[in-house]
Amino acid sequence: MPEAVRGAGTALLTDHYELTMLQAALRDGTAARHAVFEVFARRLPQGRRYGVTAGTGRFLDALERFRFGADELDFLTRSGVVDDATAAWLERFRFGGDVWGYAEGDCYFPGSPILRVEGTFAETVLLETLALSVFNHDCAIAAAASRMVQAAGGRPLIEMGSRRTHEGAAVAAARVAHLCGFATTSNLEAGRTYGVPTAGTAAHAFTLLHDDERAAFRSQLSASGTDTTLLVDTYDVAEAVRTAVELAGPGLGAVRIDSGDLRAVAEEARRQLDGLGARGTRVVVTGDLDEYAIAALAAAPCDAYGVGTSLVTGSGAPTASLVYKLVAREDASGDLVPVAKSSPGKSGTGGRKHAHRRFQDGVAVAELVSTDAPAPEPGTEDRPLQVPLVTAGRVVGREPLEAARERHRRALAELPPAALHLTKGDPALPTLTGQS
Amino acid sequence: MPEAVRGAGTALLTDHYELTMLQAALRDGTAARHAVFEVFARRLPQGRRYGVTAGTGRFLDALERFRFGADELDFLTRSGVVDDATAAWLERFRFGGDVWGYAEGDCYFPGSPILRVEGTFAETVLLETLALSVFNHDCAIAAAASRMVQAAGGRPLIEMGSRRTHEGAAVAAARVAHLCGFATTSNLEAGRTYGVPTAGTAAHAFTLLHDDERAAFRSQLSASGTDTTLLVDTYDVAEAVRTAVELAGPGLGAVRIDSGDLRAVAEEARRQLDGLGARGTRVVVTGDLDEYAIAALAAAPCDAYGVGTSLVTGSGAPTASLVYKLVAREDASGDLVPVAKSSPGKSGTGGRKHAHRRFQDGVAVAELVSTDAPAPEPGTEDRPLQVPLVTAGRVVGREPLEAARERHRRALAELPPAALHLTKGDPALPTLTGQS
Repeated sequence: MPEAVRGAGTALLTDHYELTMLQAALRDGTAARHAVFEVFARRLPQGRRYGVTAGTGRFLDALERFRFGADELDFLTRSGVVDDATAAWLERFRFGGDVWGYAEGDCYFPGSPILRVEGTFAETVLLETLALSVFNHDCAIAAAASRMVQAAGGRPLIEMGSRRTHEGAAVAAARVAHLCGFATTSNLEAGRTYGVPTAGTAAHAFTLLHDDERAAFRSQLSASGTDTTLLVDTYDVAEAVRTAVELAGPGLGAVRIDSGDLRAVAEEARRQLDGLGARGTRVVVTGDLDEYAIAALAAAPCDAYGVGTSLVTGSGAPTASLVYKLVAREDASGDLVPVAKSSPGKSGTGGRKHAHRRFQDGVAVAELVSTDAPAPEPGTEDRPLQVPLVTAGRVVGREPLEAARERHRRALAELPPAALHLTKGDPALPTLTGQS
Repeated sequence: MPEAVRGAGTALLTDHYELTMLQAALRDGTAARHAVFEVFARRLPQGRRYGVTAGTGRFLDALERFRFGADELDFLTRSGVVDDATAAWLERFRFGGDVWGYAEGDCYFPGSPILRVEGTFAETVLLETLALSVFNHDCAIAAAASRMVQAAGGRPLIEMGSRRTHEGAAVAAARVAHLCGFATTSNLEAGRTYGVPTAGTAAHAFTLLHDDERAAFRSQLSASGTDTTLLVDTYDVAEAVRTAVELAGPGLGAVRIDSGDLRAVAEEARRQLDGLGARGTRVVVTGDLDEYAIAALAAAPCDAYGVGTSLVTGSGAPTASLVYKLVAREDASGDLVPVAKSSPGKSGTGGRKHAHRRFQDGVAVAELVSTDAPAPEPGTEDRPLQVPLVTAGRVVGREPLEAARERHRRALAELPPAALHLTKGDPALPTLTGQS
């Protein structure tokens, strides 16, 4: 994998206090206690009906590169973050624990334990920041992307938000958009690193570079062929469409409209293209689209949508509010005991959770999250949701992105139809909890 | 610089269409035309009174690593993005143009040309995506960070949002927060890469790991010394504060409160600490703080604030909506001519802009953005805002992060006092435009 995205080491993508806690726990002997951490969201962003598990593949990649090398150790000791004894421990550190999680692309609901990290306290506490960074970003983008795909109703979506987010986040966002059903991305690094199909033709700058629009179109058609997409809103759309078909002929691939009242302009362009005999030429619309704007264009003659800002910013919910909580740990006598905060407002539920999705007549009806196996109920079926991702430190859960993409499609199809409504609502499934 | 953040190459952090345009322009001969691109925001996020230029240092670093190596070229040709002739051009590519920009940390307003990239069309069009990714992210975080620092009124702020954003964005956010006046960050990579002071002590997991709170506090005090910060809201705050002072003595560094009604809990903790003789023990509050919540705590006995989610998500404005527009290019006869879109809604102003800030009695009164030098006005002074960053391909604008931090402090002090109001308002300076 290229260094630009994958990087050499991920160990310092970590909060200072993870190492302070490690050092104290190494000194007092609790570092070796068996510990169970879980990642979950207390709630979904306001009005969202489901969450989407995303980031699993990236987390597994990052975990394999979570190593404290000479440069990391030099920084940590020089700056006084750790002492020599802790540095020596970090130098030998390899994650040797187990990770289970919801399979990437599956849906989640409030309280769903989408990741469980188990091992010694020392090795599991260190992964908190990295795990949360990856999942909080990717799940936030995924939830928005999934709704946009629903809103588009089968029309292809192009992800083009790289310029509106951090350059590294852009690559992850392009991966997640494809996972959730976007057809292509503008981001070349996502093409190289994750195999996401890339697409792109020209910006307004290309038209402005040339002496006139005609020269720009001629150049693009000559370089890219008739099946390209010509951008027709630099000056006057009607004139541009006329020029485009005149130069390309009726076999022109597509025209792109990036401004104005997209519905009205698309309708006018469609009429004009049809009138010119270019009935197969597609109309691509871009420009400040979100899931609501896409839905509002359902009756317009648009053949594809390009989405930027609202995709990479999670369409109003730029982080998924996932937390990484210690739910069980070994006590002095070697027994695993459930633990949880009990302060007002943020209290949690202790114990290692098992998660199942309950189905009735093939439709999901509830999320069961319990420290016990679920009690069977007549007429229902329960599907276990957690799969092994890392076993004794070895990554076992890697899969092609296309597998996660297909899983997401299936997971949505299993939900009750109201889950896919764009309007604000409650989580589509109730989370039923239990405790042993 | 460590690879984890700096990476090996940045050339594919680029939209597909930049290369499609390059290829067509190489074929038709316009690739060599001199071109001027400018980065600016058409408007500030709703209600914000100023923007903050941030990302300059990161952009210069990324520009130096913008190279098409064997792996990049292999991907681009294999996937059909470019042909062999374009690949050969890319292999030899080194940016040889000029970049001017607002100095990092300076404020900006609607229309301020915070970056100008000048060179051949070929070399300047390629940088669009990377420049926008860096500046759109960093300026968004900076605007939020700057307001939080104002709201805190001199009390130190700790950046702790890494877990709520993409792991690479987290490092950039920590850098920008420090630039805007945050004291420290939790992010270790920001410490290593940018020298931002890091801080952190313990999470609730550390208390839960131990058999009781007393054992956890004793361990932390033993490992980190009396001057540490003990987290007191895992169970009962009053009991935790009592235990903390009992174990540490009145010289305890600080207690941290992460939940509940922060004002009420901080007041109660302060009273209790004072009653126990721990008058010098600080009260640190964290937990879903944004600039408004910080301002609301001005009268509470808080000694420091920790900010996470709202910092890394730009406190409601996760992207700065900056655009990268071609404003002038050479024509067939070798003259540089201004260019701009003329479609409805997104029309721009052509021509290479000069920017000055106008002062009256030492207070900034207007942002002058014009293709001409500004006309002097009696009783006013104009400060030029653009500094050279890259000259003939060589980076000349690199500076220590502390210099940008100091500049931001000064830039805010020059604005009219209303600029620093937290309430929603218009941009603090009018942008006066002119054209030759």
